[in-house]
Formats: sequence, structure tokens, C-alpha cells
Amino acid sequence: MNQFATPIAVSLLFVGCWCHALVAEESTQPLPSWNDNATKQSIVDFVEQATTEGSEGFIPPAERIAVFDNDGTLWCEQPAYVQLVFAIDRIKAMAEAHPEWKNEEPYKSVLEGDMASLKKLGKPGLAKIIAATHSGMSVDEFRSIVNEWIASARHPETGLLYTEMTYQPMVELLAFLRANGFKTYIVTGGGVDFVRAWCEEVYGIPPEQVVGSRGKYKFDQRYGQPVLMKLPQIDLIDDGPGKPVGIQQVIGRRPVIAGGNSDGDLQMLQWAANTVGPGMAILIHHTDATREYAYDRDSLIGRSDKALDEAEKHGWLIVDMRRDWNKIFPRETLD
Amino acid sequence: MNQFATPIAVSLLFVGCWCHALVAEESTQPLPSWNDNATKQSIVDFVEQATTEGSEGFIPPAERIAVFDNDGTLWCEQPAYVQLVFAIDRIKAMAEAHPEWKNEEPYKSVLEGDMASLKKLGKPGLAKIIAATHSGMSVDEFRSIVNEWIASARHPETGLLYTEMTYQPMVELLAFLRANGFKTYIVTGGGVDFVRAWCEEVYGIPPEQVVGSRGKYKFDQRYGQPVLMKLPQIDLIDDGPGKPVGIQQVIGRRPVIAGGNSDGDLQMLQWAANTVGPGMAILIHHTDATREYAYDRDSLIGRSDKALDEAEKHGWLIVDMRRDWNKIFPRETLD
Repeated sequence: MNQFATPIAVSLLFVGCWCHALVAEESTQPLPSWNDNATKQSIVDFVEQATTEGSEGFIPPAERIAVFDNDGTLWCEQPAYVQLVFAIDRIKAMAEAHPEWKNEEPYKSVLEGDMASLKKLGKPGLAKIIAATHSGMSVDEFRSIVNEWIASARHPETGLLYTEMTYQPMVELLAFLRANGFKTYIVTGGGVDFVRAWCEEVYGIPPEQVVGSRGKYKFDQRYGQPVLMKLPQIDLIDDGPGKPVGIQQVIGRRPVIAGGNSDGDLQMLQWAANTVGPGMAILIHHTDATREYAYDRDSLIGRSDKALDEAEKHGWLIVDMRRDWNKIFPRETLD
Repeated sequence: MNQFATPIAVSLLFVGCWCHALVAEESTQPLPSWNDNATKQSIVDFVEQATTEGSEGFIPPAERIAVFDNDGTLWCEQPAYVQLVFAIDRIKAMAEAHPEWKNEEPYKSVLEGDMASLKKLGKPGLAKIIAATHSGMSVDEFRSIVNEWIASARHPETGLLYTEMTYQPMVELLAFLRANGFKTYIVTGGGVDFVRAWCEEVYGIPPEQVVGSRGKYKFDQRYGQPVLMKLPQIDLIDDGPGKPVGIQQVIGRRPVIAGGNSDGDLQMLQWAANTVGPGMAILIHHTDATREYAYDRDSLIGRSDKALDEAEKHGWLIVDMRRDWNKIFPRETLD
């Protein structure tokens, strides 16, 4: 035993106690924006079981994969998908270089602010708008465009930045899961390159942990330098049955926790809830017309009749925003 | 200051010294299977710069993405791609259920062990063999099939398990990079589901950090349970210009280190070497006919004329296996 052995042993003991106290302190008060009720308890219990070796609900660390939808699950999707607002803003910004758009649909309706006509053009119109604004540039250029836009674009009703319209309870849930050894992923029907541009700063989720819809890419050379270009052709629609497909393509493991809010998340929730071992499906239910929006079964955005039926039938965890959350956004009003 | 403050402060000091000593010990002897020469020094220097804040070569932790080809870079690809051996073994195992294969190419040639005829059938023949053996089952079923096979299949010349024919210096490099905050990925031209089945145990790389070729998937219900089925249609050929595409699909970041050994890795190496900040391209050169195989420019498997030209032109790090590695496989012979 050398001269340092005893002090080190003593010191480790002290540091051990001290760390343990910190952990205990934290674990008695996780998820502060969640009300202390059965919903919160279900989550805390699941995680406690998952991390307790020997318990029935134990999940080995490597298998702790948690996936969450973005629009309507991690941030506000009303009155319009944020990415659609981005695309419309981009059409307006690009219009000067495209004088022909004044007389060409769907650009004409966008430029005239005629949302009724735009809606009538349906999915083909939308696809053209997405293609025009999400391809023809390198992945690096697209990231810069998104970052510039999202730093200043504001929600039409609250006046908050879109990145301030994330759900504080969900941001806490992501952090709580990570603190318990879960790898947290976003699995979005939205464009993967759009979300990857800002997700690390906003959710603490790095770009490599985002699954989403995407166009095709092409590796090319420009001015003697390699570039990865974004093409207009669709490669994956990461929605509905496409979500488990996207999860397999990118993650290659079946998630044990999935959170969503609409029928577009149904198959992803089924996939996580039906694991051989423990699994948890979480359905966010928009019930708070005062602090956010109240919508569900037949909403144009975030329709959830099938998901709600299935959640009720199988006893999935339904999060009632009005009942279960004491806070919705990180800050509720403008300064 | 409470009564514990002083002991804790003292203890932290001691633990700090002790940990520092351990780290220093380890960092003076990384990569033991690499000879102490300029090649090894290049790697060590790059990593030291990458992890030294304020240095010209510093790379923020979040951007430390390192990608490696598998066949011929992390494990032996001669005399045949391991996955092709797997597919041929599967055709033989499945033949009883397919009596028609006795008279149908390319199965006929496989069952008769007529490799010359099989080679003449070219890529379309190979595609049929891959489709027949890599689709029609769920992702879970496929994983079980691969795991069962790889636990017993042996290399025809060394008699070692294929998982014992990984390159020890590269396994050490992966661990060295991870110890320095790099996220290590496999980016393989082979099938992603094939590699994901065993990569965690063999390389310490989890399934979610593998990019590879893949077929399409279909989310379905079977006996009331959700399954993800493997379809025969190709979704991504993760080879050549497909490698940066696969990297963008799955990782969404540009790697700062890439390692490969053939022309199929060329674009991935260009992608990593040409970052705005520091980047390193590593080309494994198979020069050791005694301990492994010597092949390069015009080899049927692992052809590398373009990659070698580009590496020489741009000063990429060429790893000469005979010169730079004092050990090739974890154990050189059968017990």
C-alpha cells in the first residue's frame, strides 16, 4: 500500500457519497413542468424499472432507444407546420429570380397570399413548393438558409421565435431520458435536413439522431471541391408506415419508447409498444385551447382518430396537455 | 463552507491526480499493434491536434465523426467477400425448400459449386442470390440467421472465424478514436443488416452507427403483431458516390476522418479529406502476402487504382500493412 492509497480511498468514499446525494436529489424532482399525477408517475416508473437491473422492466443500456415525432410532439404545429411557413417564405424570397412564378401555380397563389387557392392545389402543389425550396443547393447551403430563417421567423399568434415554441415538458423528458442512459431520437414527417439544422441547440439532439423525410442526394464536384447536392426527387416519406422504415434505415434497432401526437405516428407507436420486452407508447393529446391549441380526431393538421382509438384500446400513455403540464412553452409570453 | 468541504476538495485533488496519471499512461502507448513510425505518428498527431483546444487542428467534440469501410478496411475481404460466402451458404441451406433451383440459374451453379459459371452470370446473377437470401423475412429473423451463421462459419484458408479476421490495428484505432471523443461509424458497401447483426460485439460499434447497402423495408402486421419485412428491391447501394449519400442520409454530418481501401471508398475519402477545417483520409494498402494478402490496383476484389492515385496526389495517409502493422489479426493462428 503506497502513501497515497488511504487518502484516495477516503476521497473516493466522499466523492461517492456526494455524487450519490446529487443523483438522489435530482431523481426526486425530475420533470418539473409535469404535474405530479398518474401520467408523470407512469413515465418515472417506466424509467426506474428500465434502469434497475433485475427488475422485470429492465432494459440493457444499449437498447435504450427513445424516438419522438417533432411537429405537435416536441413543438407547436398550429396554425401551420413550421416547415411549410419556411417554404412559403422561401418562395417569396426567391421570387425576384423567378419572374415567371407570378403567372404559374402554385407559386402565384403563394406570392398573392391566397391560401384558399393554394389549399385547393393539394399535395401536388405542395410537392412543387417543397421541391423548389428544398433542392438545387448543397446540403451545407441549405443548412445556412434554414439557420438564417429560423433565427428570426416568428409564430403569427404568439410572436415567439419558433424555437421558443418547443414544449418545455418534452424538453425535460428528453433530458430525463438521456440522464438515464436513453439515446433520444427525433423521427419526423418533416424534412430531415430542415430539423437537423437547429435540433442540437434546441433539443440537445445531434443531427445524427434525426430521422426524417428526405429527397435524393447526389455527390458531385464543384470548382474542384466535393459537394452533396439536394435533388428534387423524394427518397423517403417518413410518415405513417414510413416511420418504422426510417427508424430501421437509420437506427437499425427497435425503439423501446416512442412519442407522437397524430395518425402519422401510429405505426411508430405500435412498433415501440409491441416489443418482446418492455416498451412504452406516448400519445400527446392537444387539449389546451387557452395555453396552446385544442385539436385531435379530425384536425386538418395533427389528425389523430386512429392513434387515439389505438391508445385507448391498448392502454398507451395519453398525455393530456391541459391536465398533465403546468407549463407549455419555455416562456409563455414575449418579454 | 460546511464540514465536508475540505475533505471533498482534498479528495477531488487526489482523484484528479490519479485519473490524470492513468490518462497520461495510456496516451503514451496508444495503438500497440502499429509500428512506431511516421504513419502511426500522423494519426496520433491528428488526434492530439483535434482534441487540443486552441490548436489549428482542433475539432469540436460534436463534429468528431470518423467513418470506416468494413471489407478490406476493418476485416479481411479475400479470397471472397464474407457476405457473398454467407449468401452462398444460405442458398445451399434453403435448397431443400426450393427443388426448382437445381435447374435454375444462378442457383444451379451455386449448388454445384461451379464458381466459374457463377462468375459468368455477373451482377444480375449476384443480385438474384442476394435477393433470395436477404429478403422475405423480418429484420429480426434475418438478424438471427446472420448471427447463427457467423458464430460458426470459418475462413477457408486460416480456419479462423470471420469475426477473428478483423484487423487488430484497426480495432485499436477505433477504440483510440472513441477514447478521444470521436463517434466511430462503419460505412460499408455490404448489407447494413448483415453488419449490424454482429458489429457491436466485434468492433464496439452499435447498429445505429452503421451505414450500408440496403433493400427496401415494409411495415406490416403478422399474427396481430407489427413486423418490418425485408423486400427484394434495392434501396441504396452504399458504394462509391453512394457512400457520401448514405452518410448524409444516416449521419447528416460530414466526417472528419474516413478510412477505406478501395475505389469504392474514393468519394467517401474525398468527402472527409476536403472539409473546410481539419480532415484525414486513410487508405489501407494490402501489401502483406505472408500475413494477409497483397493486392491493390487491379484486384477483382478491392481494386484501388483510382484511390491510390488520389491518395498519392493529395498526400492522404497510406497505411502499408506490411510496414506499418506489427500484428494483423487478434490471433494469428488457430489454437
